[in-house]
Amino acid sequence: MPSASASRRSQEKPREIMDAAEDYAKERYGISSMIQSQEKPDRVLALVKDLTIQKADEVVWVRARVHTSRAKGKQCFLVLRQQQFNVQALVAVGDHASKQMVKFAANINKESIVDVEGIVRKVNQKIGSCTQQDVELHVQKIYVISLAEPRLPLQLDDAVRPEVGEEEGRATVNQDTRLDNRVIDLRTSTSQAIFRLQSGICYLFRETLNNKGFVEIQTPKIISAASEGGANVFTVSYFKNNAYLAQSPQLYKQMCICADFDKVYCIGPVFRAEDSNTHRHLTEFVGLDIEMAFNYHYHEVLEEIADTLVQIFKGLQERYQTEIQTVNKQFPCEPFKFLEPTLRLEYCEALAMLREAGVEMGDEEDLSTPNEKLLGRLVKEKYDTDFYILDKYPLAVRPFYTMPDPRNPKQSNSYDMFMRGEEILSGAQRIHDPQLLTERALHHGIDLEKIKAYIDSFRFGAPPHAGGGIGLERVTMLFLGLHNVRQTSMFPRDPKRLTP
Amino acid sequence: MPSASASRRSQEKPREIMDAAEDYAKERYGISSMIQSQEKPDRVLALVKDLTIQKADEVVWVRARVHTSRAKGKQCFLVLRQQQFNVQALVAVGDHASKQMVKFAANINKESIVDVEGIVRKVNQKIGSCTQQDVELHVQKIYVISLAEPRLPLQLDDAVRPEVGEEEGRATVNQDTRLDNRVIDLRTSTSQAIFRLQSGICYLFRETLNNKGFVEIQTPKIISAASEGGANVFTVSYFKNNAYLAQSPQLYKQMCICADFDKVYCIGPVFRAEDSNTHRHLTEFVGLDIEMAFNYHYHEVLEEIADTLVQIFKGLQERYQTEIQTVNKQFPCEPFKFLEPTLRLEYCEALAMLREAGVEMGDEEDLSTPNEKLLGRLVKEKYDTDFYILDKYPLAVRPFYTMPDPRNPKQSNSYDMFMRGEEILSGAQRIHDPQLLTERALHHGIDLEKIKAYIDSFRFGAPPHAGGGIGLERVTMLFLGLHNVRQTSMFPRDPKRLTP
Repeated sequence: MPSASASRRSQEKPREIMDAAEDYAKERYGISSMIQSQEKPDRVLALVKDLTIQKADEVVWVRARVHTSRAKGKQCFLVLRQQQFNVQALVAVGDHASKQMVKFAANINKESIVDVEGIVRKVNQKIGSCTQQDVELHVQKIYVISLAEPRLPLQLDDAVRPEVGEEEGRATVNQDTRLDNRVIDLRTSTSQAIFRLQSGICYLFRETLNNKGFVEIQTPKIISAASEGGANVFTVSYFKNNAYLAQSPQLYKQMCICADFDKVYCIGPVFRAEDSNTHRHLTEFVGLDIEMAFNYHYHEVLEEIADTLVQIFKGLQERYQTEIQTVNKQFPCEPFKFLEPTLRLEYCEALAMLREAGVEMGDEEDLSTPNEKLLGRLVKEKYDTDFYILDKYPLAVRPFYTMPDPRNPKQSNSYDMFMRGEEILSGAQRIHDPQLLTERALHHGIDLEKIKAYIDSFRFGAPPHAGGGIGLERVTMLFLGLHNVRQTSMFPRDPKRLTP
Repeated sequence: MPSASASRRSQEKPREIMDAAEDYAKERYGISSMIQSQEKPDRVLALVKDLTIQKADEVVWVRARVHTSRAKGKQCFLVLRQQQFNVQALVAVGDHASKQMVKFAANINKESIVDVEGIVRKVNQKIGSCTQQDVELHVQKIYVISLAEPRLPLQLDDAVRPEVGEEEGRATVNQDTRLDNRVIDLRTSTSQAIFRLQSGICYLFRETLNNKGFVEIQTPKIISAASEGGANVFTVSYFKNNAYLAQSPQLYKQMCICADFDKVYCIGPVFRAEDSNTHRHLTEFVGLDIEMAFNYHYHEVLEEIADTLVQIFKGLQERYQTEIQTVNKQFPCEPFKFLEPTLRLEYCEALAMLREAGVEMGDEEDLSTPNEKLLGRLVKEKYDTDFYILDKYPLAVRPFYTMPDPRNPKQSNSYDMFMRGEEILSGAQRIHDPQLLTERALHHGIDLEKIKAYIDSFRFGAPPHAGGGIGLERVTMLFLGLHNVRQTSMFPRDPKRLTP
């Protein structure tokens, strides 16, 4: 199907080669005209990962990127890449390839996409630099399907190099260059693995909750009033009025509980207009949200959430070991440890541990980020787990809708969950009684008029319920032991970055 | 666990009753104190749907809403409801219940949530008004867990009444009342069925695409520039600058294709600042988006998308028959019909059919909504299908990034899909060549500076690709034969509605 005649859009260099006379291979290579769905050829394209000894001596067609090319006398070695997989290909002067064809192949810009016909050949010595180590492809035809520009803004090999260790001193790629050129940065084996594993987190979250009888809901992101008082909320021009972007789906999850959906979850964007420029804050992130009616105690919900996270961890370790290993090559890290059942500590126990380690903290003081991390280390030493629940937070540090602990007015029925010493989930039993909710809102100085709709949701019979919200990027980052949430957001948004 | 002493928050009427002296049953009923997770009782709560003859003569605890209550001499009949299921309960003066207890039960406000202990008894005559027709519950204890206010803004029985037919003339509930009081409206069997089925659409979409090797991605909703020129886009205040809400995830899906993810999908909110007040437009809806690299022809993608929709239709008809029947009781409708493989018509064939039916239309004119519907009827008559593809739209009516048809400069490699004569998906082969993309943008008068990042995405090797976006609310509406997209959006957003 591809024709050897250079298209209007081809670059000059290959065209010159093709124009050369007396080239007996001239139909066997070139730049194809743009694929505009002109034809439906029968040709089957093989996958690079399927090129193994089982296919030895077969002729196959492959579409892949030119990862590298290296001319060596009358031969040209290409590494052809397809996602995380690559194979060596050889163009050698002979029956199928002319000198001009070898030169053409050697000059194809890196990252161009090519269609290659070749014979799969067993090699005597394993090719250590490729994933397909036992075979190489002896090229008979090669056509460029999409030509990359000659200068890449970053080199893929640099982008997967570990930043410390034996390769110290060699080029790496800084974060802004990566993010500015995300289309290329996402092609690395590390990025491919991170985001395939992230897609696995969503899959396992839903699979687990579907098995537990939860219903998936869709909640609106444009809302008429800021539910938690108006701080850190983005304003939207909505026809002739203003509206806001939802800081969480919480009100809507709770309305679904009041509407008898009983157990609900959603996965969607969450917006925080917070000018925090840290390794773990984004202005837009993906929330995995759960809300559930319970019978008598919010621990019924706490246990379901913790079990859901445990099922995710297990599923990742069972089904995504290749991806974990791939990321570890660039970012070495201890395997993630967790207990069954999940360790649950009360806030006062954590305070005692921190005080024993020399930290001075008041009983009703929230955990600072350094204290969170220190506590994570103390818990790891004592209990050998990277995942635990901190229960019974001081009422003073939680939002107005948090249910107070009836046994201790300074405590609340609320909890956070931590991975490797960083918070990934915040949740609580919510107040389901409109009168108590009103009292608590007044205590927090919240304008009742602005939350009237919220409070009214509970006036027509509301079951006791609890829930929580998980940050997808944080879970991905901390499970893999990475150090910046921008590595686990495909197109991160922070106060300084809105592109690409 | 619940105590019969009236809580601080109880209403006056039950308190009076309870204060009455010489009530031998006074511990057996009342208003419980608020559930604040004080205790973890061993009590197991049975589900209403499990109350069948198999449980006859067992004592069970049930938590449910009071759907109706009716006193009749020394007895009170309650209908207890749990989601789509309900059962009759009887409180009768005798060993377990006093006169006061019967009166208490009869006076519980509708929609209150109660914990009931009772004996499951087989009934001689089927109870036609309940889903559990063969048993009733003989109440021994009844405690109010959450008391509803006495006046409901709408009656659930009115809200499920068919608007025409034999019940004509009886009360129904208009749409604004429903939406203003969505927490109650969502409790109806019809709403429960609609949104459980909608959650099934998302599940089937993902299940099918996961089986086809697709990867789920998360794309940002806050973007720095309006991708299609700036019309109909919401503006967001982003710290000291302006940003926009994404009108579709298309640019990001395409970037993922350029980044070698090969086959991607996402489910997320899509925002359109369009002042359209119709039965099928929302300003925020849920997009089911697909993008896929193909080998030689965009029909490879077209077939995958059509098959995904067919798998959804089949899955719904197999797994959600109860929900379909429930919705049909209120909104009668013919079962949804589709062919395998999906019918594909070219735009020019559709034009010919419309012209034969007397419509005057130019070759490069887009379909109006009435013509879409007429075409749907003509196709149904001729081919007996409610689902079909219209392929090869005129280039003039499609966005600048649509791949022109190389065989006919007035046509394009683009398609829409229709259910019951209404568009549910729009898609195309996209231009993957930066030079052609630039030419087409200029032809459309688009400022190249604003789409530079978009065009640059294709400069480093881009595979041919195609995709499309499906509106979740429309698919739900049209599959069920409903007539307004606000029925299939839990919390709809339109130019005039931002609440609840």
